[in-house]
Amino acid sequence: MKCIKCKGKAQIKLPQHNSRFCKTHFIEYFHNQVSKAIKNYRMLNKDDKVLVAVSGGKDSLVLWEVLNQLGYCPDGFYIDLGIDDYSRQSENTCRSFAQQRGLDLHTVSIPELMGGLGIKEISRKTRRNPCSVCGLIKRYYFNHYALNKKYNVIATGHNLDDEAATLMSNLTRWQTGYLSRQSPVLPKNHPAMVKKVKPLHRLTEKETGSYAVINRIPYIYEECPLAEGARSILYKKTLNYLEFYSPGTKRQFYLDFLKKGKYNFKDSEQANLTSCNTCGQPTTLETCAFCHLIERLEVKKQVLS
Amino acid sequence: MKCIKCKGKAQIKLPQHNSRFCKTHFIEYFHNQVSKAIKNYRMLNKDDKVLVAVSGGKDSLVLWEVLNQLGYCPDGFYIDLGIDDYSRQSENTCRSFAQQRGLDLHTVSIPELMGGLGIKEISRKTRRNPCSVCGLIKRYYFNHYALNKKYNVIATGHNLDDEAATLMSNLTRWQTGYLSRQSPVLPKNHPAMVKKVKPLHRLTEKETGSYAVINRIPYIYEECPLAEGARSILYKKTLNYLEFYSPGTKRQFYLDFLKKGKYNFKDSEQANLTSCNTCGQPTTLETCAFCHLIERLEVKKQVLS
Repeated sequence: MKCIKCKGKAQIKLPQHNSRFCKTHFIEYFHNQVSKAIKNYRMLNKDDKVLVAVSGGKDSLVLWEVLNQLGYCPDGFYIDLGIDDYSRQSENTCRSFAQQRGLDLHTVSIPELMGGLGIKEISRKTRRNPCSVCGLIKRYYFNHYALNKKYNVIATGHNLDDEAATLMSNLTRWQTGYLSRQSPVLPKNHPAMVKKVKPLHRLTEKETGSYAVINRIPYIYEECPLAEGARSILYKKTLNYLEFYSPGTKRQFYLDFLKKGKYNFKDSEQANLTSCNTCGQPTTLETCAFCHLIERLEVKKQVLS
Repeated sequence: MKCIKCKGKAQIKLPQHNSRFCKTHFIEYFHNQVSKAIKNYRMLNKDDKVLVAVSGGKDSLVLWEVLNQLGYCPDGFYIDLGIDDYSRQSENTCRSFAQQRGLDLHTVSIPELMGGLGIKEISRKTRRNPCSVCGLIKRYYFNHYALNKKYNVIATGHNLDDEAATLMSNLTRWQTGYLSRQSPVLPKNHPAMVKKVKPLHRLTEKETGSYAVINRIPYIYEECPLAEGARSILYKKTLNYLEFYSPGTKRQFYLDFLKKGKYNFKDSEQANLTSCNTCGQPTTLETCAFCHLIERLEVKKQVLS
């Protein structure tokens, strides 16, 4: 098996591109895909103050590594979700990654901010699905922290598999509002909103995994213990089933959605974005979903320092 | 396991509805779904002259049976595709079904109409995928025959699995024109076009199979030998994978598309429907795809008697 670029020994096979690469040319390909994503959607400028949301998993650490290599000087941001050993290991992985590279890692702790409660406890108390509660809390603190510390872009490690699974989820119920808003870049649509970008959206989970292994980036392999049975995992498996028998279909499904599909859907909500009457963050309601959650939990929200 | 209607012994379990039925109430449910489809889309009136396209498979024979039971007096139409034993067995199955019920079956033979060539030979000669050639030829003769014999509706046995697979296929490439036109009813948009309806579109392949077994309708079990490896089969398997872990998702995906999704897509082609300059049938080109095929095959097209 030969690299299609240099005819040297290929290490990575990419059936979706009908390609094979040696290590050097796989890294080149990977960086090109990230650069293309950044350029196509005008995600980042070299003078942006970028905060990368890191979890300790391969996608977010690979994103931090690549953005650093491409010269964007990003800082990392880790949220301790209070999920026992899983959170402790995740934080240690992020800390040692940052230390080895001399990068800055910022952290906040959900149990510290929310009266000692972790995601599991919040999920139980509110009888809400843990992934949904976790997503809500993370979105809130990503935005809140970046705003407070004057970062003007938040970068997340969502890869092509994540985005294709979200697309499939939105399509099974034909949630046209979500379909119109699903994008690799969420612009600053409100004074209290920080722009969000997904520079890995053209790369699959397998590709980010290969990049991590080749570049010896230690990451935690385990999925979050609370995510077991999550629908997003089922959609990923379904798309992988299709991809196995028809390589390239997953990529086409998602990238053609961005190119041709999404413009067919009208966004009814974006126009009605207003400020939460409690915290001032953007919302389509009077009080934002995060403040509703805080109310329901009867905890005192801590102000970020 | 008890029938949810009469508490008698249930024979059929429908996880997508969280329901179980005895034979009698399954048949009632099945007829109700067909009636609902017919009513929602104004598919048929009792005085329509209806031609049911039958292949010898379960879906089309079940459709013929149900339309007959619901009082629509439909005739059957069988196209011999010239696929060796498979076609002979299919035709015999249709003939004995019609005979036992005193129904009228009309037949035409592709080898007779097209210079001795069957689908396999036409596919080879034109180097086109057999399913695509077969679909084109069948669509042409369904319409041509119905028009000649003054039928005003053609009913086909497409079930929910067929339609959901087509939807998935259209979505993987975001073919917005196809998405806008995918419908359980294709209206008469041209003087030489006969209305087409799909009364089984709310029922799954498993349900039509169960209906055939319960009502002792003999049908050919084999898939068409030329369809092996067809993409439609892969999409069906993919959706069945999802359905297995999340019952009801396939139905929701397709029915919510009809309810909420499809109106988002614009149809660019329908407005440009014109008459083929060779045969007069509706087309978006100067010469229709069927006449192009005939030209390429260099056979003399037989006129239907």
